[in-house]
Amino acid sequence: MSAVRPVVVSVPEESYAAGLASVEGVEPVLWDLSGPHPRGVEIRLVVPPYMGAPPARERLEELPRLEVVQLLTAGYESVLGAIPEGVSLCNGAGIHDASTAELALALVLASCRDLPHHVRAQDRGEWAGPRIWGALADRRVLVVGYGQIGRAIVRRLLPFEVDVTVVASRARPGDDLVDAVHGMDELPRLAAHADVLILIVPLNDGTRGLVGADLLARLPDGGLVVNVARGGVVDTDALVAECASGRLRAALDVTDPEPLPQDHPLWRTPGVLITPHVGGATAAMAPRALALLRRQVEALRDDRPLDNLVNAAPRP
Amino acid sequence: MSAVRPVVVSVPEESYAAGLASVEGVEPVLWDLSGPHPRGVEIRLVVPPYMGAPPARERLEELPRLEVVQLLTAGYESVLGAIPEGVSLCNGAGIHDASTAELALALVLASCRDLPHHVRAQDRGEWAGPRIWGALADRRVLVVGYGQIGRAIVRRLLPFEVDVTVVASRARPGDDLVDAVHGMDELPRLAAHADVLILIVPLNDGTRGLVGADLLARLPDGGLVVNVARGGVVDTDALVAECASGRLRAALDVTDPEPLPQDHPLWRTPGVLITPHVGGATAAMAPRALALLRRQVEALRDDRPLDNLVNAAPRP
Repeated sequence: MSAVRPVVVSVPEESYAAGLASVEGVEPVLWDLSGPHPRGVEIRLVVPPYMGAPPARERLEELPRLEVVQLLTAGYESVLGAIPEGVSLCNGAGIHDASTAELALALVLASCRDLPHHVRAQDRGEWAGPRIWGALADRRVLVVGYGQIGRAIVRRLLPFEVDVTVVASRARPGDDLVDAVHGMDELPRLAAHADVLILIVPLNDGTRGLVGADLLARLPDGGLVVNVARGGVVDTDALVAECASGRLRAALDVTDPEPLPQDHPLWRTPGVLITPHVGGATAAMAPRALALLRRQVEALRDDRPLDNLVNAAPRP
Repeated sequence: MSAVRPVVVSVPEESYAAGLASVEGVEPVLWDLSGPHPRGVEIRLVVPPYMGAPPARERLEELPRLEVVQLLTAGYESVLGAIPEGVSLCNGAGIHDASTAELALALVLASCRDLPHHVRAQDRGEWAGPRIWGALADRRVLVVGYGQIGRAIVRRLLPFEVDVTVVASRARPGDDLVDAVHGMDELPRLAAHADVLILIVPLNDGTRGLVGADLLARLPDGGLVVNVARGGVVDTDALVAECASGRLRAALDVTDPEPLPQDHPLWRTPGVLITPHVGGATAAMAPRALALLRRQVEALRDDRPLDNLVNAAPRP
């Protein structure tokens, strides 16, 4: 019976429904979870909308055959409470790697090459006279966090003739990109030699406030702090102080608080470049999300293990 | 006699003199060519200042033992008339590769990730609401010009999950970076598939106005033109028209005219990002210039062939 009845999966956007329509034995239906779905009794996998509030638990509890909630975000903590017993939760790890790593490089290069200065000069119609500007080449870059996105950042950094060092929660041998992965306990020592500090760690009890006044003070003069992790990894007040004095610079896709209120001093701190948490939300997301969704619905159809399981329930 | 008498070379900055002081058998002296040098009779190699007017021919003619003029720029056309008969001219090819390639990536990423928009929003204290932004990943990039800097650009582009095609003056087999090098005759056909067009060709009779209204019209809607070559490679009026309509965008380190007058419409054309010819003039230059100068003065001292010869005179 199950071999002929299609696996019904809900997706939040037409483009995903269209992209999954060619998967044999799978029937995508459109659902943004704002109200009950007429096919709710058949739905076995739900993809909640990418942006907006987490799904309501009562909405998911209306689905008697629900087996999997597949997120489009890497973060999943805010969704855990909504997952009914016996349902597996998979996150969107991998979907945003290319986009977030790309933004990290964009922020590093924009800061090192003074692009915010040039944008403002352009608005005044001012062509700067000859001088020697900053560059990324030859800088010592310390990447803190060496998961999938950290590796994607390092892969993009290496051709820029820089010296790259990486730190992860625990020391381990190197790989095809780096000679060694240093442990978090070495961060204070390594920070003293970091012209550019790139943050891409998850936010948890071990990383909240990781980059505070002490660590910032260890960075060399002229150092650049790039945060594409979460705002809470950095002590905002300490960073504002170090940048306001002109000693450090920063490029931040994430802030604490977020969104940043209009009157927050960070907006106007010299040497600080801010983007409004746009690391993952780009055109690069949809094709990578669709590739993951295809793999997952095929796995569900074929009763094979799912990827990206963060909360596995026993399969029925 | 020549084995014990040091090779006297003039350099325009203290840092180069300091960097060459350790080269055995070579004596660097400081000279900006603004007046005669007291050791002029001994000088065998002159490095003119990086910025400013080309050297005066009469200044160089005062040097009876002069063998080599070593430039710090890749361009040398404006200097040719100043080189006395029998003196070799070497350019600074290679010194600016890392810096210029880096700026090309900075301009591409800044444009693809809307950084000028974010800089201006930052100045207003505005945190943008959620939306899907542009990205570089998955874009088709066409690099026009495949010399040393073109290769340096491609090396930096490849990890960004893009589709890279390159064009040079003549078609030739590929290398470790690309499958094939297309000839300039294929440019119109290839442009139709170029989401990003990066220009890094020398300016000459074959490339002046290369990117005019016809070629621009072939680019797909939303295409980005990045010029790190010379302003004259692009027809400025045609580019302004395509960007003013919102069909194309541009990121330009070089313009025609240059410097760009304050009232030029290019400054205020939507979707255009301008940097004031800062591709090579960065902190990345000095160490690479010094490495070249060391190689050259050692070659002169040891009577070995010089690198980067653009106008070889018979060695005495």
